[in-house]
Amino acid sequence: MLFEKVSIIGTGNVATRFAHAFSKAEIEVVEIVGRNLEATTALAAAVRAKPCLDWNRVKQHDGLFLLAISDDAIGKVAQKLSQIVGGRAIVAHCSGATSSLVLATHFHNYGIFYPLQSLSAERAVDWTKVPLCVYSPQADLEEGLAQLAKQLSPLVYRIDDAQRANLHIAAVFINNFSNHLFCLAADICAEKEVDFDILRPLLTHTVAKLEQQQPIEAQTGPAWRGDTGTQERHLQALQALPGHFSAVYRLMSEGIKASKAAADESTD
Amino acid sequence: MLFEKVSIIGTGNVATRFAHAFSKAEIEVVEIVGRNLEATTALAAAVRAKPCLDWNRVKQHDGLFLLAISDDAIGKVAQKLSQIVGGRAIVAHCSGATSSLVLATHFHNYGIFYPLQSLSAERAVDWTKVPLCVYSPQADLEEGLAQLAKQLSPLVYRIDDAQRANLHIAAVFINNFSNHLFCLAADICAEKEVDFDILRPLLTHTVAKLEQQQPIEAQTGPAWRGDTGTQERHLQALQALPGHFSAVYRLMSEGIKASKAAADESTD
Repeated sequence: MLFEKVSIIGTGNVATRFAHAFSKAEIEVVEIVGRNLEATTALAAAVRAKPCLDWNRVKQHDGLFLLAISDDAIGKVAQKLSQIVGGRAIVAHCSGATSSLVLATHFHNYGIFYPLQSLSAERAVDWTKVPLCVYSPQADLEEGLAQLAKQLSPLVYRIDDAQRANLHIAAVFINNFSNHLFCLAADICAEKEVDFDILRPLLTHTVAKLEQQQPIEAQTGPAWRGDTGTQERHLQALQALPGHFSAVYRLMSEGIKASKAAADESTD
Repeated sequence: MLFEKVSIIGTGNVATRFAHAFSKAEIEVVEIVGRNLEATTALAAAVRAKPCLDWNRVKQHDGLFLLAISDDAIGKVAQKLSQIVGGRAIVAHCSGATSSLVLATHFHNYGIFYPLQSLSAERAVDWTKVPLCVYSPQADLEEGLAQLAKQLSPLVYRIDDAQRANLHIAAVFINNFSNHLFCLAADICAEKEVDFDILRPLLTHTVAKLEQQQPIEAQTGPAWRGDTGTQERHLQALQALPGHFSAVYRLMSEGIKASKAAADESTD
């Protein structure tokens, strides 16, 4: 199964980046299906596709229909789409958090085409560094999705629903939660009138060193060292700030302390 | 004030990296003062310095005595050192978490020489990316420390005690706490038998995009979007795991939700 054309349902971050990526890889983008006139026509024009704003006019074809829409819309949109293009159309969604089964009620041929990266409509992405997770309960369709993925990125993984759900949770810790910590650090700097930019090299280094190490090998800090004096001084300073700085400090320090105890135990 | 020689007290991560950096910058490392015979002689040999294991033999000179030791040792070591080299020796410590005042009782000329980076004795560091924070209550000594720092790194900042304490707290959030999240993500992968390496590009990208954005502009995820369905599914999966995954998930999600509310309010 080799896909030569793709219709994209959606005009958001993931839809936009996939539309550009397919167009660049010379895979025909047949239609961009969206609700917003401006966004739909702009994206369609950018990738030489037809804009489609009316569900009843979505074109049937034997390529892939890619649902790049929010999690809670997938079920509803799949139902609507199946009424127009029929249950034999080939459909995949791009979500990390939603089971493929949400498509099973409406389509015989369904799968997953999930980019494990934070994508932005506004910024081009280096596709060679975007892991693409594909899945279908049908082997030939999964192979087709893998082939399509390989035309965009060398990082193609076959990941079933359960594994994808777990990867998505881990991704939330890695991306969303660590970014929240960076926000808190920036807030501390703003509150205390020190320049956040001084910390940028540390930010870069924190992740760069994980290219050669497992996270647990890179763990350092007052909680890891058991330096309670420093932790108490930090907590005192943080308690004076509005917000949940000290609650985060406590919970993270407890976790690091537990990791240290576990690491010590395993080397005993 | 221009320092032409430095004695380093300590043989740990910071001491090791500074010793190598000074040696490379052709600033004479007079002595490495340490307790551990092997570590002290090895580091001294590596930078063509004399090893010193006996406090009573520490050599007096008009250069800098740099205390690169643990926070709780600084006061005690400063006292001991002052008895040998005298209260007129020039002394700085390298800690982010300890006030410069701990040196004031023992020395007339004291300051701070703090590298805002995670340093490892085992790994060479790119000094052009290590911010060095210097401080002294005496202007000429602070200038001397700044000049010395500039020979190692272009990123030299004059940061007083209060600002340094706050930078250190922010650094704990950026480095230690985010690394703990990466540990939790790796644990989830291990527990659920998915390959952590699939997430490495996301890890890199999370920080890379902050080169052009403030953290708050880069915040995404289920909590930011208000996607409660996904959050509930994630929590259900995490509650089945031993450890504090779900507590971290809840606290981080609450914080992100609060950030979103504040961001929405400020754009209203």
